[in-house]
Amino acid sequence: ESEMLASSSSNMSAFKEFKLIKVLREDDRHKLINLHGSLPLKKSDDDSGSGPVDSNSEESDAVVVLERKPFDPTSIEECIRQTKTKETLHNDIYSTFEIFSTPNKADMRATLIFPATEKHISKYSEHQPFIVNETPDLYRDVTLPCIEASKFSIQWVYNILDKTKEADRIVTEDSDPETGFVLIPDLKWDRQKMESLYLVAIVHKRGLRSLRDLTAEHLPLLKNVLQKGQAAIKEQFGVGSDKLRIYFHYQPSYYHLHIHFSHIRFDAPGTDVMRAHLLSDVIDNLSINPDFYKKKTLSYVVRDSDQLYEAYEDNGYFQ
Amino acid sequence: ESEMLASSSSNMSAFKEFKLIKVLREDDRHKLINLHGSLPLKKSDDDSGSGPVDSNSEESDAVVVLERKPFDPTSIEECIRQTKTKETLHNDIYSTFEIFSTPNKADMRATLIFPATEKHISKYSEHQPFIVNETPDLYRDVTLPCIEASKFSIQWVYNILDKTKEADRIVTEDSDPETGFVLIPDLKWDRQKMESLYLVAIVHKRGLRSLRDLTAEHLPLLKNVLQKGQAAIKEQFGVGSDKLRIYFHYQPSYYHLHIHFSHIRFDAPGTDVMRAHLLSDVIDNLSINPDFYKKKTLSYVVRDSDQLYEAYEDNGYFQ
Repeated sequence: ESEMLASSSSNMSAFKEFKLIKVLREDDRHKLINLHGSLPLKKSDDDSGSGPVDSNSEESDAVVVLERKPFDPTSIEECIRQTKTKETLHNDIYSTFEIFSTPNKADMRATLIFPATEKHISKYSEHQPFIVNETPDLYRDVTLPCIEASKFSIQWVYNILDKTKEADRIVTEDSDPETGFVLIPDLKWDRQKMESLYLVAIVHKRGLRSLRDLTAEHLPLLKNVLQKGQAAIKEQFGVGSDKLRIYFHYQPSYYHLHIHFSHIRFDAPGTDVMRAHLLSDVIDNLSINPDFYKKKTLSYVVRDSDQLYEAYEDNGYFQ
Repeated sequence: ESEMLASSSSNMSAFKEFKLIKVLREDDRHKLINLHGSLPLKKSDDDSGSGPVDSNSEESDAVVVLERKPFDPTSIEECIRQTKTKETLHNDIYSTFEIFSTPNKADMRATLIFPATEKHISKYSEHQPFIVNETPDLYRDVTLPCIEASKFSIQWVYNILDKTKEADRIVTEDSDPETGFVLIPDLKWDRQKMESLYLVAIVHKRGLRSLRDLTAEHLPLLKNVLQKGQAAIKEQFGVGSDKLRIYFHYQPSYYHLHIHFSHIRFDAPGTDVMRAHLLSDVIDNLSINPDFYKKKTLSYVVRDSDQLYEAYEDNGYFQ
């Protein structure tokens, strides 16, 4: 973060010469679009002495993420009064309109990656999703070998648990090696707006990869995370347990057991039923059946860019 | 629907005299805002003979739902070239910009309810959400009496099952009274875009209110809905079972057992882990334990405008 340079330079039309190559992804619900295009490579200040260049030949790939901005309640009255409207439907007290705004505040924001590589273009492309219904046998034969082969480093997790990194961000800690955990704000949360509260509890116990590894013997750990996590959030942020969505991801994004705490008013990514598993449900399921997650088929979405997709594809699962 | 009058009338500034009273709800993620305000009551065409009125005193309540539109990929190149930009950050190949667009297509849409009543204003307001952890005892003592007292009519469901309404919309039917169902497109789906595919299976068997009423004896019904529903959607819409999110809502919006089928690329409302329960999980859970939903605590969100909230509030649950 210390490398980020806040800039006030005002290039009044950074995208004037943008040429569209391909729409990579459309997200209509969130009013967002990812574009692959090209932009001219500009001369940097320190080679101003070089001769004239053929601007047509000096282009490079660019990725642009364009997103409409949320409305600003402080200027919304002025904004709506200045619009031009076209009525599209009228029935009794209900009407609909198409609206042309006259923005006097920024109404969109963009992220530009330039020059962009193939990897950037792939990252911002739509990837085909597929559902995997993972039986215990498929977990043992396909998923587990894939996790073990990937050797994705979780040193950053150990740095948090050992307090060599991010120690100042810890909200609460229980240092018990069997039932303890560290509660830390997720990077997606700015710690300002309580409606977007998002924290993560990382357990001290090592060797638990995910939900799949849990049995009734872990109930004391799970109940401890639930109770102490709720209590710490109530005490430090004033958000009660009747406002907290507390859940695992399956598949998780890293294989050291952790639990998400997000405000129910926050439509956080990864809360879909195809990925989230409530901690209270996990506790309940293990109480009803001690080996629940050794017997359960777990369904989730993989994308054709994921290692797990490749593992299942190689296994012939998608035929 | 036959009462809807499509109108091409073009009132160039329908909101010119809009006075804001209150922002009712902000949805930043979907770029949507609900407003309570007032507008002048206009003379209708058929009372043009009446005398002049004091326009200041002739106002009434209005509710406006304002939403930014998704980007149009066919005009996105032109759109982005014409923007004015202000660079807000620059680090290596990454830059961010605040953008002022110059809309030559409609960039927002609005729904106007005018004149609006207190009920409309309440409907479009933010309602406080609360999590209920419904044990089997709480279901019996609070939820079930509330459902039974509300006597919410489900005649429209029987009209579909009896084919006195919407018979032409049926995608597939199995008429068996114990394991049969009707599969019908949800009203949210236009049947055009496969990525927003959304259908509902309504079971023929009466007396099953929700997930809570299911035991292992209903496994033949549930497996039949899963298999025949998937097969019909594959055959008629070409969407395979590895693209379908198939789930119950709990609480459901009406108490006759039904199952949702939505495309996994469609971020449909009600797919959050606090409301959706995968049909495959329900089948699996009842196979592991025949009385699973008689023992399970089910967590869900109620809002302070719901009857169920009132029932739990009266019961002292939220103290």
